[in-house]
Amino acid sequence: MPPTKKAGILGATGTVGQRFILLLANHPQFAIHALGASSRSAGKPYFEATKWKQSSPIPDNVKKLVVKECVAEEFSECDVVFSGLDADVAGDIELAFLKANLVVFSNAKNYRRDPAVPLIVPTVNTSHLALIPHQRALHSLSKGFIITNANCSTTGLVVPLKALQDAFGPLDRVLVQTMQAISGAGYPGVPSLDIIDNVVPFISGEEEKMEWETLKILGDLDTSATAFTPLAETRVSATCNRVPVIDGHTMSVSLSFARRPAPEPEDVARAMRDYTCEAQVLGCYSAPGRAIVVTEEQDRPQPRLDRDVEGGQTVTVGRIRNCNVLDIKFTLLVHNTVLGAAGSSVLNAEVAVAKGLI
Amino acid sequence: MPPTKKAGILGATGTVGQRFILLLANHPQFAIHALGASSRSAGKPYFEATKWKQSSPIPDNVKKLVVKECVAEEFSECDVVFSGLDADVAGDIELAFLKANLVVFSNAKNYRRDPAVPLIVPTVNTSHLALIPHQRALHSLSKGFIITNANCSTTGLVVPLKALQDAFGPLDRVLVQTMQAISGAGYPGVPSLDIIDNVVPFISGEEEKMEWETLKILGDLDTSATAFTPLAETRVSATCNRVPVIDGHTMSVSLSFARRPAPEPEDVARAMRDYTCEAQVLGCYSAPGRAIVVTEEQDRPQPRLDRDVEGGQTVTVGRIRNCNVLDIKFTLLVHNTVLGAAGSSVLNAEVAVAKGLI
Amino acid sequence: MPPTKKAGILGATGTVGQRFILLLANHPQFAIHALGASSRSAGKPYFEATKWKQSSPIPDNVKKLVVKECVAEEFSECDVVFSGLDADVAGDIELAFLKANLVVFSNAKNYRRDPAVPLIVPTVNTSHLALIPHQRALHSLSKGFIITNANCSTTGLVVPLKALQDAFGPLDRVLVQTMQAISGAGYPGVPSLDIIDNVVPFISGEEEKMEWETLKILGDLDTSATAFTPLAETRVSATCNRVPVIDGHTMSVSLSFARRPAPEPEDVARAMRDYTCEAQVLGCYSAPGRAIVVTEEQDRPQPRLDRDVEGGQTVTVGRIRNCNVLDIKFTLLVHNTVLGAAGSSVLNAEVAVAKGLI
Amino acid sequence: MPPTKKAGILGATGTVGQRFILLLANHPQFAIHALGASSRSAGKPYFEATKWKQSSPIPDNVKKLVVKECVAEEFSECDVVFSGLDADVAGDIELAFLKANLVVFSNAKNYRRDPAVPLIVPTVNTSHLALIPHQRALHSLSKGFIITNANCSTTGLVVPLKALQDAFGPLDRVLVQTMQAISGAGYPGVPSLDIIDNVVPFISGEEEKMEWETLKILGDLDTSATAFTPLAETRVSATCNRVPVIDGHTMSVSLSFARRPAPEPEDVARAMRDYTCEAQVLGCYSAPGRAIVVTEEQDRPQPRLDRDVEGGQTVTVGRIRNCNVLDIKFTLLVHNTVLGAAGSSVLNAEVAVAKGLI
Repeated sequence: MPPTKKAGILGATGTVGQRFILLLANHPQFAIHALGASSRSAGKPYFEATKWKQSSPIPDNVKKLVVKECVAEEFSECDVVFSGLDADVAGDIELAFLKANLVVFSNAKNYRRDPAVPLIVPTVNTSHLALIPHQRALHSLSKGFIITNANCSTTGLVVPLKALQDAFGPLDRVLVQTMQAISGAGYPGVPSLDIIDNVVPFISGEEEKMEWETLKILGDLDTSATAFTPLAETRVSATCNRVPVIDGHTMSVSLSFARRPAPEPEDVARAMRDYTCEAQVLGCYSAPGRAIVVTEEQDRPQPRLDRDVEGGQTVTVGRIRNCNVLDIKFTLLVHNTVLGAAGSSVLNAEVAVAKGLI
Repeated sequence: MPPTKKAGILGATGTVGQRFILLLANHPQFAIHALGASSRSAGKPYFEATKWKQSSPIPDNVKKLVVKECVAEEFSECDVVFSGLDADVAGDIELAFLKANLVVFSNAKNYRRDPAVPLIVPTVNTSHLALIPHQRALHSLSKGFIITNANCSTTGLVVPLKALQDAFGPLDRVLVQTMQAISGAGYPGVPSLDIIDNVVPFISGEEEKMEWETLKILGDLDTSATAFTPLAETRVSATCNRVPVIDGHTMSVSLSFARRPAPEPEDVARAMRDYTCEAQVLGCYSAPGRAIVVTEEQDRPQPRLDRDVEGGQTVTVGRIRNCNVLDIKFTLLVHNTVLGAAGSSVLNAEVAVAKGLI
Repeated sequence: MPPTKKAGILGATGTVGQRFILLLANHPQFAIHALGASSRSAGKPYFEATKWKQSSPIPDNVKKLVVKECVAEEFSECDVVFSGLDADVAGDIELAFLKANLVVFSNAKNYRRDPAVPLIVPTVNTSHLALIPHQRALHSLSKGFIITNANCSTTGLVVPLKALQDAFGPLDRVLVQTMQAISGAGYPGVPSLDIIDNVVPFISGEEEKMEWETLKILGDLDTSATAFTPLAETRVSATCNRVPVIDGHTMSVSLSFARRPAPEPEDVARAMRDYTCEAQVLGCYSAPGRAIVVTEEQDRPQPRLDRDVEGGQTVTVGRIRNCNVLDIKFTLLVHNTVLGAAGSSVLNAEVAVAKGLI
Repeated sequence: MPPTKKAGILGATGTVGQRFILLLANHPQFAIHALGASSRSAGKPYFEATKWKQSSPIPDNVKKLVVKECVAEEFSECDVVFSGLDADVAGDIELAFLKANLVVFSNAKNYRRDPAVPLIVPTVNTSHLALIPHQRALHSLSKGFIITNANCSTTGLVVPLKALQDAFGPLDRVLVQTMQAISGAGYPGVPSLDIIDNVVPFISGEEEKMEWETLKILGDLDTSATAFTPLAETRVSATCNRVPVIDGHTMSVSLSFARRPAPEPEDVARAMRDYTCEAQVLGCYSAPGRAIVVTEEQDRPQPRLDRDVEGGQTVTVGRIRNCNVLDIKFTLLVHNTVLGAAGSSVLNAEVAVAKGLI
């Protein structure tokens, strides 16, 4: 059975856009219907407009699609629009699409802090989709809405935190240090002179995003489903580093629980292994078999070896052990351009379809 | 004036040994007198016995030195012996050298926890040399003694911690996450298949060393100068990662102070900038101009750009800022094979000479 | 329909062995039946015996297979045995397997120069399988035989050379310079200190292999199918370099033809595009759709982007242009651990099955 | 004695400009007097205007120099002007400086093919400086002139070629394949996504430069010193690749001689070892001790280990051996941003001073 939902992709020539294309190329529900990019690219066949940087080739049915301008009229037939736009243009364009009654799943940061926009990691807080009726009412829309997904690093962090919060109650403090892949900066992104034989201990705005987004994602929706209540008692401290890795963000996490005594490492491991999310229960196509994979080997996860586990839609956790300073520490890995970007949007959209929102 | 002290180097063909050779090649006090390595290498001229991996060539006066076995008789003329031996053989050999009344500066971990052996980072705790008379008495030696230097990661960490402890009193908690260079594992060391486009989130025994050695180094010597009293109130938690960097360990550090209110970032920066150590006061040849370099740029220190500052004998600190979880966080960089290894031993020996111990 | 041929893998814990496992995990004809490795590994379940370095996980049906010693009795039920053994042990073991009337497809260099052993690149010279009856007669075997595949670099080179030889007659001179991936050296293989931020312009024995093997592979079988006649008029000069790339050997090739005038670049491109091989005609499962992929982009092929094209069983050629010194020059890429190693053996075996030899 | 010649640097904020600053910081003859960059940088102190990417810090006496616009009036006091300008602006600016009677040493490609502009590699063809009077006459200048240095890859190639041409007479054919460092592309230059775990087999315009510039540099000046006669009989074929190396271009070279019989590898090695150039004879400060370093080890030269030999002003050659296709093949290494760029200009200027041209 061919896919029945028409999908548009904004920012289709960028690295996130390229991932959207690969993820949707053989999707059972969504068919790539329209590609949007800057006016410089508009009018060209896709293969000419893009500098393709993926290790799989451009899907044949996409190669010659003519790229459009990112204006809502060009996407009016789309049941869903995935946005991989850069933040400097995403704000205006995504708002125009929303006002045109379109359904937008955005990777950009622009609306993540909007009190009427759900910030959703698909294996964590799809319950926040319940705010959509309120958002539609605010904008007087019949079917359109906008959902954002989180920063790539935040995404990796919140999955195991959610499992722990569900199992052991509130988290007290979370300290995370990242070692992030170059693909997170897009293309051309990080100059090679900056990163070969090197570490860059700074990524602009990234730490603030991790510290803030985590609280919204792990927080609640109020009973009327019209407002978010971010976590108030949990404190998050993030340090972000860039390392010479193509794909896959690795993070060292230390955390403490409000509950005393704190759970032991084996309890933590069990809680992560047992964790399941709504996207799995709903049987979504892109949902990972395991939302969290816990490794046994003492030197894992490693980005090159583990980033493609579960198609890149899981978070791999290893080295769960006691911490001398907080309660527990562990290492996690997330595929930053799959679950950390386009993969989140696609899975969010699948959940929205399953819930009848699209 | 030619150097007057004869120096031996054990493990001379390894990566630490090669660094010793470069550091001593033009040293004003120490002349390379004897090179020791395994029996496989003994009898060969040095350039044949070693696989030289440094970017400067083998010094001409060392090239044809015939490598000796690591037995004390062969080094009896040496005023000082630097050991870059691997831990699996260092224990026996260094002990035999000590019993032969030789002066040994060791990079190996074997005697670091020995209650009669000082564990010295030369820009931190050269005051611990005061225990030497007690050590000599224990072994009934007239001039021999053994000093160890710290693990390369510990070394980088304790320099700024010492500055903060001196300025603001006891540290409460220290959480550190490392991104360590491949040269720290020696040669052949880390297989390239393990580290290109990758991070390895585990280094065997490294976290324990950082957590334990820090307490001894930053602790006191008792009033009789016969025993060490490691820090009892400070808790250290370390997570160690290997990254694709040739030289230079980068670390993200978060810490809290016992004192309330805690110092602000600008106080911390000032204390680090103002920090001076005994090796500087004594005018030692290899002492850095600044024991700690504080960078202004928000994206520094970076290993490729900063590891050679002050000849690799300093620790560079940047991004000093408040931490949501503990008090303060910052990033540091240490050259792991200079200050983190051979450079520490050489500077320790210079201090020992200045104090009349050699 | 489940696979009907039982396959053994020798050297199963090494990097070539791991590739065999991935290639055979879901194979329609061959079922993994027995794994062999050194006596150090024998008796252990596979996942404990190996240091798995592939980005796909160990297939579930292989994980707990108990590793055997590499002795023929343990593999007597196998219809085909794939050998990823190192050269230092392959000679004796593979001979013993052959004498035990087993069918061996070897990656090792030991028998490549044997006048009674075909040296086969599956998209080039499967016609050489015709010598099998002669080989069996020599060893008085009813069903056993041994086939070797070529060195990984030779393999990449001979595919386009074969296309050109078929289209334009004898090659006169071939000059090739390689930029080879680290995975070609196995595990632990190339130390990271040797290759990060570096090129190593030497690979022991590699140039001789490329210069010699090419002549045998592109040569003929005599009319009685009892002897090979290597090319006598073609001269090959190879220079081999190691570069910091995980998988995929890239080569710059310049060559001249015997025929005058020489073909033009567009003729060469067409000949390569049109080239088909017997493995394709026979419809073999692992045969690439295109034995040679010719790229249009001026900056391709690139190992990271092109090595997985056609499942790694093709050779990608680009930048076909005139040469000021010889006639034509171009760049090629081969996946060194797929077509360049295990993938050749598997496809060779499929051809042998199709021809009724197994 | 302080330096007596005032030096200006154009394009001072770029990677070549940064190298100029390091090379001139402690120069005995040239004092950095003026820095020029784009109007975006002009007016700012140097440390604010540049993104410093060198592993040595900005020299103290340069840090606060105020950057000027690249107009001749601002540099009228300079005895010599070094240009690290990009080709898109170098043409007009350098011409204006020349017409203002200034002495310009340029790294840009713009005037390399000009029949009145010497294209000089300082360890090869400083005899071409004899054309300066003719150039001055053409432009009616009393002291100004312009000299260009060669492309970084050409520079590495011509040094050993010159030694061979001097020793054995005309070269017949030269085939060269490069593996070039990322620093050759400037900053930001090569995106890291393009080069980590990868090779890019194309550098725009580079092959043409190598094939053409070599003929001019190795050619003669006519007897009237008013025109160049490029080599007519030698054919050069170049293939250029980018590899993940920070600094240092490695090349595989095969060549044949006009003379028969051709020299043997040991003759070639001797000719290279014995080669000396005018810059050495004149005792120039930046002249290498050895213009060509011939390595003995079979796996050298390697960029990380050999690029800094002789301060980066030499060419290191290894693996000299017979070639099956041409006569001789070998591997060479040149430091692309020292001898291959700024280092050539500085040494050219030293030679010009020694010859009384400045």
